[in-house]
Amino acid sequence: MTKRNLDTLFNPKSIALIGASATVRKWGFLILLNILKGGYKGKVFPINPKVESILGFPCFPNVAALPEAADLAVITTPAKTVSGLIDECGEAGIQNVVVVTADFSETGEEGAKLEKEIVEKADKYSMNLVGPNTMGVFSAGTNLHALMPMIMPLHGNVSMFSQSGNVGVQMLDYGQQENVGFEKFVSSGNEAVLSTEDYLEYFADDKNTDVILGYVEGLEENSRFMEVAKQVTKKKPVLIMKGGRTEAGSSAASSHSGAMAGSTEVFRASFRQTGVLEALSSQELIDCAKAFANYPLPQGNRVGIITRGGGWGVLAADACEEAGLVVPSLSSDLVKEMDKLLPKYWNRKNPVDLVATIAFDPLPKCLRMMAEWDGVDAVIALGAGFRAFSYQAADGIEGPKELVDTLDFMKKVLEEQGGQPDETLVEVAKLVKETGKPVISVSIGSDYAHKKYSERYGIVSYPTPERAVRVLKHMTDYCYFRS
Amino acid sequence: MTKRNLDTLFNPKSIALIGASATVRKWGFLILLNILKGGYKGKVFPINPKVESILGFPCFPNVAALPEAADLAVITTPAKTVSGLIDECGEAGIQNVVVVTADFSETGEEGAKLEKEIVEKADKYSMNLVGPNTMGVFSAGTNLHALMPMIMPLHGNVSMFSQSGNVGVQMLDYGQQENVGFEKFVSSGNEAVLSTEDYLEYFADDKNTDVILGYVEGLEENSRFMEVAKQVTKKKPVLIMKGGRTEAGSSAASSHSGAMAGSTEVFRASFRQTGVLEALSSQELIDCAKAFANYPLPQGNRVGIITRGGGWGVLAADACEEAGLVVPSLSSDLVKEMDKLLPKYWNRKNPVDLVATIAFDPLPKCLRMMAEWDGVDAVIALGAGFRAFSYQAADGIEGPKELVDTLDFMKKVLEEQGGQPDETLVEVAKLVKETGKPVISVSIGSDYAHKKYSERYGIVSYPTPERAVRVLKHMTDYCYFRS
Repeated sequence: MTKRNLDTLFNPKSIALIGASATVRKWGFLILLNILKGGYKGKVFPINPKVESILGFPCFPNVAALPEAADLAVITTPAKTVSGLIDECGEAGIQNVVVVTADFSETGEEGAKLEKEIVEKADKYSMNLVGPNTMGVFSAGTNLHALMPMIMPLHGNVSMFSQSGNVGVQMLDYGQQENVGFEKFVSSGNEAVLSTEDYLEYFADDKNTDVILGYVEGLEENSRFMEVAKQVTKKKPVLIMKGGRTEAGSSAASSHSGAMAGSTEVFRASFRQTGVLEALSSQELIDCAKAFANYPLPQGNRVGIITRGGGWGVLAADACEEAGLVVPSLSSDLVKEMDKLLPKYWNRKNPVDLVATIAFDPLPKCLRMMAEWDGVDAVIALGAGFRAFSYQAADGIEGPKELVDTLDFMKKVLEEQGGQPDETLVEVAKLVKETGKPVISVSIGSDYAHKKYSERYGIVSYPTPERAVRVLKHMTDYCYFRS
Repeated sequence: MTKRNLDTLFNPKSIALIGASATVRKWGFLILLNILKGGYKGKVFPINPKVESILGFPCFPNVAALPEAADLAVITTPAKTVSGLIDECGEAGIQNVVVVTADFSETGEEGAKLEKEIVEKADKYSMNLVGPNTMGVFSAGTNLHALMPMIMPLHGNVSMFSQSGNVGVQMLDYGQQENVGFEKFVSSGNEAVLSTEDYLEYFADDKNTDVILGYVEGLEENSRFMEVAKQVTKKKPVLIMKGGRTEAGSSAASSHSGAMAGSTEVFRASFRQTGVLEALSSQELIDCAKAFANYPLPQGNRVGIITRGGGWGVLAADACEEAGLVVPSLSSDLVKEMDKLLPKYWNRKNPVDLVATIAFDPLPKCLRMMAEWDGVDAVIALGAGFRAFSYQAADGIEGPKELVDTLDFMKKVLEEQGGQPDETLVEVAKLVKETGKPVISVSIGSDYAHKKYSERYGIVSYPTPERAVRVLKHMTDYCYFRS
């Protein structure tokens, strides 16, 4: 198989929407709306012989009537019309087609016959065909939102292919919650022409993509996926979530995407051999995407932990050891250095427990000492953004004037602090750059905080130490695979 | 050991704050502020011989000068003063003391000597003594926030003891993010007098507590904990997060709380025997708290899954089987019933995949059929709150007038929908009551949605299927233990 060039598919200069509709409850309307709302940078040609214009855009009666060959056609008309439309596209010189329409091989024999037809047509014109039964494609470069649901992903350096449309588009939405930005996305649908392997190969060469995510249920050409993956993981991390790992899941998958799920053990062994990382949950997939997209890899498995609360240090150390990471003892030099900053009864251990001191100053300094120490490859900073924590004081209360005044005063102080850069988190961002090590912040339980940290300071932050450790484990695995 | 009655400790009618301070950066100020800000319902007596009043409240020079014996004394003065103060409290008839002050056994021999002294004094007066080295206590009944950090937990039916102050208070904060409300909380500190076992026993009898959470590192009287736990789990679920499960974690724990961590295998075996549920992460602990606090237990391990997206159904089924839960095939009667509602090509399997239909109506109806079917003990509803999903359309965009008008129109529709009850989620809440089965909603990736669902509809919702399944697994384990 030769590599497919999908540049024009993902960044078309013009789109023909075949089946564009003026009826709000039709996909031909909603996809057009999404394309327009997404701020698509190219030209849009709605095709519908029955109406003059939709949403202010003039309609064309058919493909032949277009003023130019569109770079991409998106088809939403009924299954039985698709084959003929592909001919029309081919004749008009359209090289990329996204077939949103369902009712093909996933629904039975009749659909399979129709699907075979469109494959023959697409091959005849050497066409890049996505789907059928796809939820569409997204690309940050041209603001292309040819998607069924109205999802406007953050832009970034992560690209994803998904054998489930819903899993895919909702991971884009999840990314928005977690400040993970996407470059390209494709719901691969029935993969009648373009397959998971093609997208994987393309994302590997795509200069705007640094991290590749995938959701797969079945891989019919098993050997080719592994062969491709082996090449890709030498360049970029590939994180896969595998659906159909069990009998129950695989039975659900077979009725859903029509793909046969292979044995989980076989997949896992192949993943290990080819350096593909397996995310065991959707949360783990998006958590990993955030760190791989923004941080350097650790160069080994030794983790330094700094904590503002003893118990969280214990839990982080437990999670590290359970994940096969090492929490090394501090060197005597490092202990001596920290002795100068910390009260005499500090614990002198890794995790370094800063709860011993109320002062804020030692935190960024100890963090620097830890990150610069050559005894660790990565650092977890627990509760580093402590100052931003107490926002709740901002509510008023009834009571003596002195109490009300004090609360008002504290509210102001906290608001000011909230608006000011937190020096510890600024230091975290600096240390990542200077040391080349991942320094992961844990905001502990506070969803609002870990999102704000990512946005404001450009650092990677999770709400619990266990999630941070799972990510570090994958990063370490990938580091070992690469070296 | 006799059971301790801790009613007055947790719901005192009056508090003496020994070491109350007018200096903002002192704990004696911040705890007072928290008590006042929390809207404590009883009388507050700040004790400080050097100032006339703090925050508008008149100060008393010492315990003897109080107008009445306070129900509770909170002590924040230096370690060496505590023993004498306990004498003063005892003489004045104060029966409950929270010693926030640190520098006792956790810091070495000298501190251990001081701690021994206060234990002798507390025993002399048969005093309930919390700590030393505690971050305080919380109780919803009297709005008691005798806590070091300013955290105002949601009120609810969950009570928690924690051998780490930080882990404890931050779980309260985490609860706020996840809509989990607390009834009572204690940071047990060094447990010089009152121990984890005492709190566990007390929460078991507390009529306002339905679910008990605990963070433990070491359990010195191991046999007594298990003996107590065995009795408590017959009445209420006990969910424990165990710190110090590994060498790295246990080493950190030994320097932090002074407790010796026992062998993890021994703990786990005892937990299983006594019906204690072990949460493997802080997220799992709070997720479980939410479901146990709000939902009935399943009566078996059979799970029905309804999904609006095929792939999510696959992942949910995988997670169930991996957790030892069963995803049974649909009965032919149920298939026949659903046939009446769904398009002819629907998958006729569990998970029931509703992606086949665009219409909204079948969702609540199929959900009811599934929940009422005697073939399942619990239901997972994936994407049930679909209508609330597309809020992002609310942003404007430039373009032809018709497009802008349409987006404005959709914005209004979505806002209206957002303000209206979603019939599917209303149905979920009804079904839980009517069938006595847990029907868990998964909002998929959308943090904003799962919180809103919990608040608005009183239903239990998580952002990923994997988290929902972990919770169901614990509920099922507990159901089997109880029966």
